[in-house]
Amino acid sequence: MSLNTFGHLFRVTTWGESHGPALGATVDGVPPGVAIDEEMIQVWLDKRKPGTSKYTTQRKEPDQVRILSGVFEGQTTGTPVQLMIENTDQRSKDYGDIAEKFRPGHADITYWQKYGIRDYRGGGRSSARETAARVAAGGLARAALNTLAPGIEIQGYMTQMGPHAITGERDMSQIDQNPFWVPSAETADTWANYLESLRKSGNSVGAIIEVVARNVPPGLGAPVYGKLDTDLAAAMMSINAVKGVEIGEGMAAAMLTGEDNADEIFMGNDGKPVFSSNHAGGILGGISTGQDVVVRFAVKPTSSILKPRQTITKSGESAEIITKGRHDPCVGIRAVPVGEAMMASVILDHLLLHRGQIGANRGKIG
Amino acid sequence: MSLNTFGHLFRVTTWGESHGPALGATVDGVPPGVAIDEEMIQVWLDKRKPGTSKYTTQRKEPDQVRILSGVFEGQTTGTPVQLMIENTDQRSKDYGDIAEKFRPGHADITYWQKYGIRDYRGGGRSSARETAARVAAGGLARAALNTLAPGIEIQGYMTQMGPHAITGERDMSQIDQNPFWVPSAETADTWANYLESLRKSGNSVGAIIEVVARNVPPGLGAPVYGKLDTDLAAAMMSINAVKGVEIGEGMAAAMLTGEDNADEIFMGNDGKPVFSSNHAGGILGGISTGQDVVVRFAVKPTSSILKPRQTITKSGESAEIITKGRHDPCVGIRAVPVGEAMMASVILDHLLLHRGQIGANRGKIG
Amino acid sequence: MSLNTFGHLFRVTTWGESHGPALGATVDGVPPGVAIDEEMIQVWLDKRKPGTSKYTTQRKEPDQVRILSGVFEGQTTGTPVQLMIENTDQRSKDYGDIAEKFRPGHADITYWQKYGIRDYRGGGRSSARETAARVAAGGLARAALNTLAPGIEIQGYMTQMGPHAITGERDMSQIDQNPFWVPSAETADTWANYLESLRKSGNSVGAIIEVVARNVPPGLGAPVYGKLDTDLAAAMMSINAVKGVEIGEGMAAAMLTGEDNADEIFMGNDGKPVFSSNHAGGILGGISTGQDVVVRFAVKPTSSILKPRQTITKSGESAEIITKGRHDPCVGIRAVPVGEAMMASVILDHLLLHRGQIGANRGKIG
Amino acid sequence: MSLNTFGHLFRVTTWGESHGPALGATVDGVPPGVAIDEEMIQVWLDKRKPGTSKYTTQRKEPDQVRILSGVFEGQTTGTPVQLMIENTDQRSKDYGDIAEKFRPGHADITYWQKYGIRDYRGGGRSSARETAARVAAGGLARAALNTLAPGIEIQGYMTQMGPHAITGERDMSQIDQNPFWVPSAETADTWANYLESLRKSGNSVGAIIEVVARNVPPGLGAPVYGKLDTDLAAAMMSINAVKGVEIGEGMAAAMLTGEDNADEIFMGNDGKPVFSSNHAGGILGGISTGQDVVVRFAVKPTSSILKPRQTITKSGESAEIITKGRHDPCVGIRAVPVGEAMMASVILDHLLLHRGQIGANRGKIG
Repeated sequence: MSLNTFGHLFRVTTWGESHGPALGATVDGVPPGVAIDEEMIQVWLDKRKPGTSKYTTQRKEPDQVRILSGVFEGQTTGTPVQLMIENTDQRSKDYGDIAEKFRPGHADITYWQKYGIRDYRGGGRSSARETAARVAAGGLARAALNTLAPGIEIQGYMTQMGPHAITGERDMSQIDQNPFWVPSAETADTWANYLESLRKSGNSVGAIIEVVARNVPPGLGAPVYGKLDTDLAAAMMSINAVKGVEIGEGMAAAMLTGEDNADEIFMGNDGKPVFSSNHAGGILGGISTGQDVVVRFAVKPTSSILKPRQTITKSGESAEIITKGRHDPCVGIRAVPVGEAMMASVILDHLLLHRGQIGANRGKIG
Repeated sequence: MSLNTFGHLFRVTTWGESHGPALGATVDGVPPGVAIDEEMIQVWLDKRKPGTSKYTTQRKEPDQVRILSGVFEGQTTGTPVQLMIENTDQRSKDYGDIAEKFRPGHADITYWQKYGIRDYRGGGRSSARETAARVAAGGLARAALNTLAPGIEIQGYMTQMGPHAITGERDMSQIDQNPFWVPSAETADTWANYLESLRKSGNSVGAIIEVVARNVPPGLGAPVYGKLDTDLAAAMMSINAVKGVEIGEGMAAAMLTGEDNADEIFMGNDGKPVFSSNHAGGILGGISTGQDVVVRFAVKPTSSILKPRQTITKSGESAEIITKGRHDPCVGIRAVPVGEAMMASVILDHLLLHRGQIGANRGKIG
Repeated sequence: MSLNTFGHLFRVTTWGESHGPALGATVDGVPPGVAIDEEMIQVWLDKRKPGTSKYTTQRKEPDQVRILSGVFEGQTTGTPVQLMIENTDQRSKDYGDIAEKFRPGHADITYWQKYGIRDYRGGGRSSARETAARVAAGGLARAALNTLAPGIEIQGYMTQMGPHAITGERDMSQIDQNPFWVPSAETADTWANYLESLRKSGNSVGAIIEVVARNVPPGLGAPVYGKLDTDLAAAMMSINAVKGVEIGEGMAAAMLTGEDNADEIFMGNDGKPVFSSNHAGGILGGISTGQDVVVRFAVKPTSSILKPRQTITKSGESAEIITKGRHDPCVGIRAVPVGEAMMASVILDHLLLHRGQIGANRGKIG
Repeated sequence: MSLNTFGHLFRVTTWGESHGPALGATVDGVPPGVAIDEEMIQVWLDKRKPGTSKYTTQRKEPDQVRILSGVFEGQTTGTPVQLMIENTDQRSKDYGDIAEKFRPGHADITYWQKYGIRDYRGGGRSSARETAARVAAGGLARAALNTLAPGIEIQGYMTQMGPHAITGERDMSQIDQNPFWVPSAETADTWANYLESLRKSGNSVGAIIEVVARNVPPGLGAPVYGKLDTDLAAAMMSINAVKGVEIGEGMAAAMLTGEDNADEIFMGNDGKPVFSSNHAGGILGGISTGQDVVVRFAVKPTSSILKPRQTITKSGESAEIITKGRHDPCVGIRAVPVGEAMMASVILDHLLLHRGQIGANRGKIG
């Protein structure tokens, strides 16, 4: 049994395996009247798709999305939108070894333990290919946000690769200028050298991604178990290989005093509250403050490596394993658009939830 | 509008405000035939209740739980269990100031922005008192686990307070011997001095809590959006003041190579897989491996401090605020039993989900 | 395991047993800013409470509701509202016999088969007392409707008791003038005689209740599995003893031709569509049309009767059973306010769902 | 916004419009290890597909199902199963008239009122074509039931068409021998004559369908809002054109006395309880008794008829409408396999829910 849906009102169910005929997202709760076509979604899929640089898997997947339902004459109708991506470059023979052996650090063993059957080809459902469906749904979420709450911007980028944190001033204009989505030309160079060496040695490495949502209206989040940060934590932790999630100050909040942590409040010239700092990451009590919403997550290194590791087989025998196939040396790179997609989906979901509350005498300040 | 329920099959809805007549947890999905009485739940509430040391709020709340439904002749019946705790020591006059001013770093402003009305007394629904209901539900979850899967142990402890991480060898027998639930007598002394000084200065500080679940069977977790780590991340992030959640290696996974991160697998003498390490924190692909499940979360410092901070009033005027009331200088201390309760609830929930899957030819190894 | 919550956004979880200390409803998703106090809820509970005429159970329960959370200074805050009703007139000794024997037509045997334990006192959770919690929640729903969509009226009444259908012209002003909530003085007399004779003989009888919602805006209902009629059918069928639910023409729709069934459409003077008839019961394709929403449901006769019936004991022995206790000869009477409460809850829930859809260019006609 | 998913653990989300490129069902919660292939599902689709007799729409749709995910080497893997059916015989030009006018008795007007946009081609999402997806999911549910609980049989048939109820003794062997799935050769003849005449006159008619599930184990159903009968009522009411649902005695339960309604209980030779009758329709207190589960539902006549009816246009002008297209004169006929599919899905869902309750000391009798 599995639970493959996320969201309260904007509900995304992803389906499909790495080497099956297709995968996709069944998206329910899309508001009607949103302008959308395949190209508007494709642009995000292209950002995530494999093979765009030598630092990602060389599997050639065009990841071409098709809209099968829920759109009529260029607009959503309020009915479920089916987004389908056909798989085209499966090389299942690459995976023969994995049919019997469990890759250390991979879901091979747990899927077997849970289900007693697994589609081992390319990791089946546990493959990072599943995230293509998230990105497609995220593209739809962005389009809906553009209609319902124009001005919201969502941007992701890497801030750490292995031992190398981003250095120097952040320059957001650099994000699209390097294969790592890092806002620093200097860091991009450092990482390029580091990763090239790692890739050649058949190893892999982890990464940290930060995603920011700007111009999010205050009031989003449904305490106490549908808090905005709760749902963001779940959304990011559900991405393959993620091992930690932080909001604003994150784990470092433990090291602050109350005096230092308090984001002081002032009135802005536009009659809206402004804050002296953003330790909170734009969320207090699970509800957006109107500041930037800031989320970070850590992606562990790819488990499929050329370095030999000890493992066991399904029949319980010891074995050494080397994973050939085609794998990302730093799967964190392609997690950037995935993190953006999850942010977009969660923000839209909470916007819809909050609007359902109409009739409330919402709080005005001043 | 709010969403106050967590869990898939073991569903806990908490209700109540800090200064209302009572608060509690409506717990649905409790398996029938679980031996339970109020005392079995009270023991956990006593661990969380305020006023047990000078390092926690001096509000005097006995936090006495009453079971109002779902239990007959000492056993659960499979119907909803209502756990109610009456509030007895409200001093609402302490909060007059807060009615008009928003505490920086607190949910005061966002509840106002979202709802346009808020029960400001003691923080209302955003108060840490809400966690008493979680602990009560967690006590019930532990009892159910004892019946359904005897042997599972859940233990929480603090590993960091402000700048001071735990030092020296961990000695689990020390956890219950100090007011900080820290597995180190030496660290307890350091923290005592540090916190005493902080408390006297009217300041507060953050903390990191680690919670471990031992003897969890493999196979728990429902990929890809009801993963065990996803649900744990949501559960912990939903606790007041939490800003980061880590599974196993956590954020540090970003710094590892694939070679180092791989927990190698061997066959144990008992015919079960054993792992050379536990970077994974007991979870791979969102499913438990049978290793210890390890979660950490960071709690920010209490926002209610005696240090003066700049803020605004409801009418938009600048103001300085000092929060008197009775507050925890390190609310992370009392978050330890809360983290345990969330772990117990999530593990039970996934045990029930997994058992619903009967009929599967689950995977045997060897 | 059980599922004791209904509703999508307005979510009501009922808890409690017939002879436990209390029962109630945990209501989440109540919009903020709704004026409410206990008296506004009590008025509906008084309509349902036992012992108001000789035609209902003589158990004396004041059914006094207490609001324990979610309301501050006379308004809802958007946080969960706990509505508690204490049980005061339990006579558990009446039920000794039922501890061992299963009443035919009653849930005694199935609760035992499912759970292996049951609170047999007064039927435990399967008692019609559970519906008090629904009525309390329904009172809150009515208050919210008054705030969000003033003008919606919800009214229930009986249309059939045993072999006697309502006769003559319906006179709605009569509904509150007789103990059967029947819109006909003449029918009330017939039923009084019939039921008195039945009650004396220790027998019971079934009934049909109709509930109408007037001034419901068009557009409510979430096809295709959260249709307005789907949710109404579930809501009514979930009431104890209900065996059938009809919308508009109901089962008789089977006998109509398409020509006869079509409610023809015209434009009204106010620029809104008007219909020549209402075979649809105010719902087309699962969405409200703006006409009266009309639901009917059949309640079977009370199973607890003085007439001796054959049954078995828990140990599998044949036995004869006579149920003494205090029971309703026609439990359908007290189902009238319960049906109204369910209608109010479903309408409010769909109003909230529909409003969440903001941003849609909703359809204007003309 | 819409809610297109049903089920608690066996969760079916249908998607697609009548004249879009495809439609289908995303099925989550399928237990692993269930033997399945496309042919096992196709057999049920063939039963529902149009054009099999002159009494159904002449649209030519092969309704060929493709399994796109969740199945590996002939078995389910526990991951979502995507069942896709491509549309091949859309004749959208037939529907030009409907773009502007609302068919009386049809969802045309309410979709417009709700969403402000609608895919009018063939009724879009409100078309009976949506039920093909339900039937596909139902085929999968049947396969899972065969694996988890062999012996359960689910059978639907018609019992009434317009004014003509089934007459004579029921002969179940006749069900597959006539185009109406009626268990009576004599009635089939009567209906054939009646419907042929109706069809020629361009009219349509309603019907009643009964669905029986045999060998359902006792204990299924989750009171009080996930009762087996509650979920069956919702499942059937969610089918297009259904206006009433009955369990066992149904609406006629209102006419019974408690003495007559009580299904007396005896011990069978096999040590299981047997009942003297089945007024309950196999369900007491929302939980299955082990008797046959019996559900009936009424389908209204097709709204798309050749008889001219008065209506209005989108611009609010009066108009007469005649619906040409290709329509079922009695859509109830094709609702038979749909009702079976819903029954299969609900029974499987509750079987999974009930099994999640393991650890219960379930009730033994005797």
